[in-house]
Amino acid sequence: MNFEIKYKDAMGRIGILKTPHGNVKTPALMPVIHPGKQTIDVKKYGAEIVITNAYIIYKNEELKEKALKDGVHALINFDGPIVTDSGSFQLSEYGDIDVTNREIIEFQEKIGTDIGTSLDIPTPPYVKRERAEKELEITLERAEEALDARENLLLNSVVQGSTFPDLRAKCAEIIGKMDFDVYPIGAVVPLLENYKYKDVVDIVMASVEKLPPSRPRHLMGAGHPMVFALAVAMGCDLFDSAAYILYAQDDRFMMPDGTYKLQNLSYMPCSCDICQNYTPNDLKSMKKDQRMKLIAQHNLHVSFAEIRKIKQAIIEGSLLELVEQRCRVHPYLLDALRNLKKYIKLMEGSDPAYKKSAFFYSGPESLNRPEIFRHQKRMERLPKKDKLILLDSFKKPYSKNIHNFLTNFGREKKYDLEKLGSFYRIKNHAKNIEIENNLNKEDSLQIAVADVPFGVIPLEIDEVYPLAQNEAPASLDEDSKIFVMNSIKKYIENFKEVIISEDVIKKFDLDLTFENYDISSLKLDFDDKQKIKYTADYQFGKGAGNALFKGNIRIEKSRKTGKIRHVYDDDLIATLRASDGIFVLSMNGAKRLHNYLEYPKNRVVVNSDAEPFAREGKSIFAKFVIDIDMNIRANEEVLIVNQNDDLLAFGRSILNGREIKDFNVGQAVKTRKGDK
Amino acid sequence: MNFEIKYKDAMGRIGILKTPHGNVKTPALMPVIHPGKQTIDVKKYGAEIVITNAYIIYKNEELKEKALKDGVHALINFDGPIVTDSGSFQLSEYGDIDVTNREIIEFQEKIGTDIGTSLDIPTPPYVKRERAEKELEITLERAEEALDARENLLLNSVVQGSTFPDLRAKCAEIIGKMDFDVYPIGAVVPLLENYKYKDVVDIVMASVEKLPPSRPRHLMGAGHPMVFALAVAMGCDLFDSAAYILYAQDDRFMMPDGTYKLQNLSYMPCSCDICQNYTPNDLKSMKKDQRMKLIAQHNLHVSFAEIRKIKQAIIEGSLLELVEQRCRVHPYLLDALRNLKKYIKLMEGSDPAYKKSAFFYSGPESLNRPEIFRHQKRMERLPKKDKLILLDSFKKPYSKNIHNFLTNFGREKKYDLEKLGSFYRIKNHAKNIEIENNLNKEDSLQIAVADVPFGVIPLEIDEVYPLAQNEAPASLDEDSKIFVMNSIKKYIENFKEVIISEDVIKKFDLDLTFENYDISSLKLDFDDKQKIKYTADYQFGKGAGNALFKGNIRIEKSRKTGKIRHVYDDDLIATLRASDGIFVLSMNGAKRLHNYLEYPKNRVVVNSDAEPFAREGKSIFAKFVIDIDMNIRANEEVLIVNQNDDLLAFGRSILNGREIKDFNVGQAVKTRKGDK
Repeated sequence: MNFEIKYKDAMGRIGILKTPHGNVKTPALMPVIHPGKQTIDVKKYGAEIVITNAYIIYKNEELKEKALKDGVHALINFDGPIVTDSGSFQLSEYGDIDVTNREIIEFQEKIGTDIGTSLDIPTPPYVKRERAEKELEITLERAEEALDARENLLLNSVVQGSTFPDLRAKCAEIIGKMDFDVYPIGAVVPLLENYKYKDVVDIVMASVEKLPPSRPRHLMGAGHPMVFALAVAMGCDLFDSAAYILYAQDDRFMMPDGTYKLQNLSYMPCSCDICQNYTPNDLKSMKKDQRMKLIAQHNLHVSFAEIRKIKQAIIEGSLLELVEQRCRVHPYLLDALRNLKKYIKLMEGSDPAYKKSAFFYSGPESLNRPEIFRHQKRMERLPKKDKLILLDSFKKPYSKNIHNFLTNFGREKKYDLEKLGSFYRIKNHAKNIEIENNLNKEDSLQIAVADVPFGVIPLEIDEVYPLAQNEAPASLDEDSKIFVMNSIKKYIENFKEVIISEDVIKKFDLDLTFENYDISSLKLDFDDKQKIKYTADYQFGKGAGNALFKGNIRIEKSRKTGKIRHVYDDDLIATLRASDGIFVLSMNGAKRLHNYLEYPKNRVVVNSDAEPFAREGKSIFAKFVIDIDMNIRANEEVLIVNQNDDLLAFGRSILNGREIKDFNVGQAVKTRKGDK
Repeated sequence: MNFEIKYKDAMGRIGILKTPHGNVKTPALMPVIHPGKQTIDVKKYGAEIVITNAYIIYKNEELKEKALKDGVHALINFDGPIVTDSGSFQLSEYGDIDVTNREIIEFQEKIGTDIGTSLDIPTPPYVKRERAEKELEITLERAEEALDARENLLLNSVVQGSTFPDLRAKCAEIIGKMDFDVYPIGAVVPLLENYKYKDVVDIVMASVEKLPPSRPRHLMGAGHPMVFALAVAMGCDLFDSAAYILYAQDDRFMMPDGTYKLQNLSYMPCSCDICQNYTPNDLKSMKKDQRMKLIAQHNLHVSFAEIRKIKQAIIEGSLLELVEQRCRVHPYLLDALRNLKKYIKLMEGSDPAYKKSAFFYSGPESLNRPEIFRHQKRMERLPKKDKLILLDSFKKPYSKNIHNFLTNFGREKKYDLEKLGSFYRIKNHAKNIEIENNLNKEDSLQIAVADVPFGVIPLEIDEVYPLAQNEAPASLDEDSKIFVMNSIKKYIENFKEVIISEDVIKKFDLDLTFENYDISSLKLDFDDKQKIKYTADYQFGKGAGNALFKGNIRIEKSRKTGKIRHVYDDDLIATLRASDGIFVLSMNGAKRLHNYLEYPKNRVVVNSDAEPFAREGKSIFAKFVIDIDMNIRANEEVLIVNQNDDLLAFGRSILNGREIKDFNVGQAVKTRKGDK
């Protein structure tokens, strides 16, 4: 088996799954093909891979004979990759089936299936724990047996465990360590049918956390486009859909925003050619068979369009925005979305550090996005000072616009801070909180703004992604007020003296005790050296700024935009990328960072085979990586070293630490430059 | 001119606009046709009406000659209704044009335009008030002149007034009283282009409030499907789009969730046949002209699909849910959505009282829906009691499920209230609030639940739409907590003694002082007579229940569902409709209600011509209505009377009071039964 990740966003990925019958781009929807009855050519609608049922073939003499003779691809007339299910579904429906696990594995191998499935026990939701545990034991035994029985067949191994997240996690951990090719997450259909999306989140997250990132995960039986975006954002790569035809049989139109019954439709629901060329009345007056086929085509159109939309969102880095839109179409999906909050740490770890698209706030749930969690964590990397002055938000980037506002676009020399309104000092602040004593404090002033949705943002880092690259409504919801208030309360504990603008106090209902403060005695200082040091700390870790930018620092700015572009000592140290305000190192800078950061921080360690390639500036493949800083996120600037921690090169991580460690194929780091 | 409303939701409507060249179903998108250059047959994509520019025709000798000879329909090769713009756009772009208002009106009449436009002054946003006022004067003069100049031409009169809502309102009020056929709202394009959607809301709402409901409104220059749903929900009926072609020229794909540039697309964005049959790379490798035509087709496909989706939502009663989805795609649209809150009273007045679809909560903004505002108002119609016990929410309908829970599905006889958890009494409650003394109180117990999103719901009305027909997530956002808390605080002021379940206190952070309370002394009472009286009060007004259901009341329940179906004295008084829990009267019931409610409450007053038809049970047309209770909402059960307030019939209102008064065509009331 061979699976590679090309793009990532949240926990979602665009991958390439290689099979004996060709490659599949994931996320992929696999239409369910009935081996005896299929009439719709699903390839036409975008299907690259399909799924059919080996047990049905096995049980039908005619189908079985043809499959054994000509192969399953000829049987269902599909020349791309085919997955077969094993009969577990029939087992769950009818309680018993007459084939053994070993028999069905061998049969799948004989008929030339690309990816086969063992006969696991699909334990339904909400059963007693005892039953779930007992059945899980059987599922695990059969997984081992399946590995033993297969020769070259690629194999699914299904995560079971009913609605017990710990059992799902246990199952995922055990089978995840075995040599399977795809990991389906099973027995969620009853939950999906009953809108128990929140429980699906718990199951998928418990499973995905323990599954190896290097294998695709298949959310079994999920075929409604309403849930695709959410499932992909949780790390699912494959879906199967009998729904397109089952819904059509029932005169139901699937849409990413729900299901529409033909009888309730006065207007066709989408822009597909069926909806464009027929009216609901046209369909109502047709014969059932003809109508069903047309509705099935609509269902396929919208399902594959949704898969395309999800892929586009992953590439843009806007997948969670799509999820937030989709999850508002039903209150139970909104519950599922809100339930993601529990897994923010897991999701943040998987989410790329820098993205192409701006962060759009769509409601309180946006406060649970990885970018915001990450900002709160990275704030701890910044230097501490004595005194804080907290300003209301401005047009972004804040410092530039505050500067312009205060100096009347440069026409005045002095910063008249009273222009920013009234300010108040927190009364008895130092007495009320414990200030860390061992901080490397300078007796100086920190200026920051308070804004939705990121909370407190020190002005020095106001151009770093996504602190400048975000939009939120001017009118605030209560959750965002509370979030910013808490962010302020946490941040001010680092300071001896805190002065806050009246606008901030009012906007976020700050319930502290204040006293008057005369702001005119304070001087704002927009210091470029501070800015580059803070930015480096925020990006690489505490102290990185001082380590990188020591010596006779010279800052070069863009003539056009006035933004910092390059930082030199004698040679170039780093370049601040205009699009997202982060530093891209030079070899000189990489060396300084390498000197400063303790092993294994920010390192990708490659074996001796890869060393010469790395030094030549060639990209690093995952299989050569022998150790890595597990805190590395995708899209970060990283150091490439050998086992002795000699710096070989530096580059941009394509995957995160956990993924790079787990993968054996595909690129791990796009090397920028090697040290020959 | 002739405009009729067929369906309503929020302030949106599905209407039929009759023109010399045929009928148009609104909301309608009018593609802009360039009189000299059009190459796409827009009819194929769903266009029923188009717009072109009379000034461009007037200024081009060749076009002018052909238009005067063969008519504008032949000129642009479109046989449906054509709207022409007057050159105002050119005026705003180039500052001056060489045609007078009278000339351009007469020209439009001569070339056979269906709906012409006067030469108004499109004052841009954010100008000085003085300029806006001065230009508005000219616009108003030209409106009068246009009426004078036209013979049979139907006429637009454009609402101007820049970004001054009061000037927009003034303009709308003045021209609204004049005999125009369509009311465009003008000069919003710069706002739309700069994402100032919030200001568009203020302008449209100020205009629509004063415009006659009986005429269609056209949001001029709005051609992006992203804003259609919001604009329709504010009462706009017509859109025009040059955007489909302008965006295509710029390689931009329009979608209801935003704009996608071809250069950034890796996957095609929708399910239309262009997106299904081409890849972004296919398009990138085409010649500009060919590509542009395909993208324009995509743009038309999605624009007309969005119009269909909006119409479907109006029929279902889910338009605001669609708006809430659409407005989450950009934070500035979310600001616009939140800005609707200011206009809740206006919107509630237009919103139908009962709808087909359930109420789905999609976020804090759903708290500003008319249904919730209306519930708070209608709560004032209910009887007051001494003591309140407030329960946590249950599965809906609440009373049935609480009953089942407490009696273990009827297997136990006694209500053991302790099963519902701990209860607390508000300390010194009566002392802390002012109880109304003159209330008709019974010394008895009111039981209610507190739930998101409707707040407090007395159990007697728990099956009335939408109190049973709604879904919200179990996990609460802060806005909904505060909303329910405030709803509780307001409601408890009606009671001398208030007992609240611990679950409610915790869930909604109730910051009151409580004391222990032993709930076992209280007895729940699920009294059907109370239920029907409360329901009637809630539906028809304070006291209506006692008036309707006096005498020897007999309640008949459905054998299957156990729900109340019919209420008799000797004869049938009313039937409780199962789908939405509201009363449909019998003639007997209508007479009782008519006796009780003071004129003009709940009345539609028809002239003597209509009296015999009404008595025969024929539906009431708006033109026969001479007076009406302005508080009537669409879909309410109403009384039909003559000028002497003799009851003639009763039925269901199709429009609201203001609309019925204003319209001269179309049905106003579906009569259920007449009194022969």
